[in-house]
Amino acid sequence: MRQIKDLAAGVRRNNRTMADGRTIRYYDTHSQLREANDLRPVEEQPPIGELRLDPLVKEWIAFAAHRQTRIFLPPKELCPLCPTTNAGLSEIPESDFEVVVFDNRFPSLRPPNGEWSLPQNIGPDTPTAPAAGVCEVVCFTPDHGQSFADLSPRQVRTVLEAWRDRTAELSELDFIQQVFPFENRGEEIGVTLMHPHGQIYAYSYLPPKTEKMLRAATEYFQQTGNVLFDDLVAREIRDEIRIVAKNDHWIAFVPFAARYPFEIHVAPVSPVADLTELSTDACDSFPEIALEVLQRLDRVFNIPMAYIAAWHQAPVREGRDLLRLHWQITSVRRAPGKLKYLAGSESAMGAFIMDMLPEQSAQQLREVVITK
Amino acid sequence: MRQIKDLAAGVRRNNRTMADGRTIRYYDTHSQLREANDLRPVEEQPPIGELRLDPLVKEWIAFAAHRQTRIFLPPKELCPLCPTTNAGLSEIPESDFEVVVFDNRFPSLRPPNGEWSLPQNIGPDTPTAPAAGVCEVVCFTPDHGQSFADLSPRQVRTVLEAWRDRTAELSELDFIQQVFPFENRGEEIGVTLMHPHGQIYAYSYLPPKTEKMLRAATEYFQQTGNVLFDDLVAREIRDEIRIVAKNDHWIAFVPFAARYPFEIHVAPVSPVADLTELSTDACDSFPEIALEVLQRLDRVFNIPMAYIAAWHQAPVREGRDLLRLHWQITSVRRAPGKLKYLAGSESAMGAFIMDMLPEQSAQQLREVVITK
Repeated sequence: MRQIKDLAAGVRRNNRTMADGRTIRYYDTHSQLREANDLRPVEEQPPIGELRLDPLVKEWIAFAAHRQTRIFLPPKELCPLCPTTNAGLSEIPESDFEVVVFDNRFPSLRPPNGEWSLPQNIGPDTPTAPAAGVCEVVCFTPDHGQSFADLSPRQVRTVLEAWRDRTAELSELDFIQQVFPFENRGEEIGVTLMHPHGQIYAYSYLPPKTEKMLRAATEYFQQTGNVLFDDLVAREIRDEIRIVAKNDHWIAFVPFAARYPFEIHVAPVSPVADLTELSTDACDSFPEIALEVLQRLDRVFNIPMAYIAAWHQAPVREGRDLLRLHWQITSVRRAPGKLKYLAGSESAMGAFIMDMLPEQSAQQLREVVITK
Repeated sequence: MRQIKDLAAGVRRNNRTMADGRTIRYYDTHSQLREANDLRPVEEQPPIGELRLDPLVKEWIAFAAHRQTRIFLPPKELCPLCPTTNAGLSEIPESDFEVVVFDNRFPSLRPPNGEWSLPQNIGPDTPTAPAAGVCEVVCFTPDHGQSFADLSPRQVRTVLEAWRDRTAELSELDFIQQVFPFENRGEEIGVTLMHPHGQIYAYSYLPPKTEKMLRAATEYFQQTGNVLFDDLVAREIRDEIRIVAKNDHWIAFVPFAARYPFEIHVAPVSPVADLTELSTDACDSFPEIALEVLQRLDRVFNIPMAYIAAWHQAPVREGRDLLRLHWQITSVRRAPGKLKYLAGSESAMGAFIMDMLPEQSAQQLREVVITK
């Protein structure tokens, strides 16, 4: 792995090793020197967890028994995602940074030791397996008080380049099936660190949602010869009523069968399998639509919207021509002071019930006045 | 539909019509007369909602656009699930009751007018359908301050008889595919009425979870000739370490791949497809284990545990020999003051990450001291 690598859009990546052996990657636009050392005492790394099969539905569950000690809503002075200062040593040894990605200190999934494979026999006697995978943390900005929607277009472009770089590298690991960059935002959904950041989970198994999307896309292709997601985007463009924002290279819409009070899919107009395949033009015009969508979300109720922003990508080793990159943003807030909870029907049966039509939420999002 | 019907265990059902035409069913053990009339002004019923297909995963989403006006955490004096008093007219016209089941005033699903069928072509152009189904409310007790775990064994037996009666009758409706009795308990999971109650959703489509369980059970049967759930229960009995409670007719265990901090499956020792097929002995010994399990849950942290208690039954028209009745109780509480949130990995990818091994939570549940 090269320590310094020049990426697209003037971004240079600089890899450094942390005190406990983890890697931190600085993504910079001004060729900064990154030489600060991690001066913290070395703490023992938790061991790898366990994958167990839930045979009732044939889904893997990852058990990471050592995460209960995670730091929980620390005050700003103790934030592990702020730059290191004289007052405190954080996860980021430098006193300033643009965007960094480092190995998660409490990973749910981690690289296996030596040979690894997922058990293939499926039933009550399926053996367990080490919880193989990679978990990384993406810091969007050194500014503790910002959020993604406050970033400059330049910063968003750098974040995108970091996501693209991580997707490319993680896809090369032979035990990885799926790379998933995402952001959880808001205490309402359990965020434990307020500093603006996202995460990347690289799974060693196909996550249930990806598996189900692949099954539907495969059936649809067999029946029609078309790619399902492309036909869905075409339908949204035709219907128009659920479109929230668009530019030459991206479209953002509330899907016809949205299952959250606010749900937005952001898709490139020229479809691709994953972030690494985006054209330069698509990359360069992503910050505009990303910021617009998130700013609209925050202004619907004029309170910072809790959300999950999830990059769905084609899996690394299959379905590359059947699944398409899109960014799914979902919020459980249905009104100020009211959240949508996933209770009996959703949680136990997977059957979603929605109070609000997608056309309503699309209109609310469009009617917001934002200053571009 | 007969107005008065004698069920098992000395329970008599008495059907009455509410002011707006909905049905309320009293389940009584002392042949009480139920003649009180619903004296409230008639309010207009909301229209039937809409089913839309999410083609990305081939799942139906129900849109019930008129539920945003639901009553939200009313004070006890305005509780619609308490008996009617001189001070206020509630959903239950009688001044006392044992167990009642009535049609939900704000149903997510409701019976269709005339002919109804689910669209069979599956893709971006799948038409919508009326959101057919039935939603009912089950009041466990007239006592506002109780919870299920406080009921007497006799009351639990009557609740069970009500669930069985509703399952039998709802299964006879030609537009129903699945009958799902459940209880949401606790403000943490969005319960809007504190009065102890459950709900019944009868779906006109196979809920995604049932569909996935049916797919796994079918594959397993084809490979082994065995019923998957039976083999899973046999494994739990063999392993023993995750068993929480048992009696001659029921077993309660934390499943090997539990996906919530506390998850308990309660299953009859003699497997059946649904509640209507339970033997008299199994019915009569259900209250003991149900109360023990819920009391253990409440005493793990000595705070009332938020939970979802869900009856998984075989669907009405298929898989009757492949899927088995079991009661799944899940709680998101992992410690006092800490909940498990379904964030990026679980919510967007369906990939569950657990901090706690099932063997740990089973031990915590067993070690609780309860007074039987």
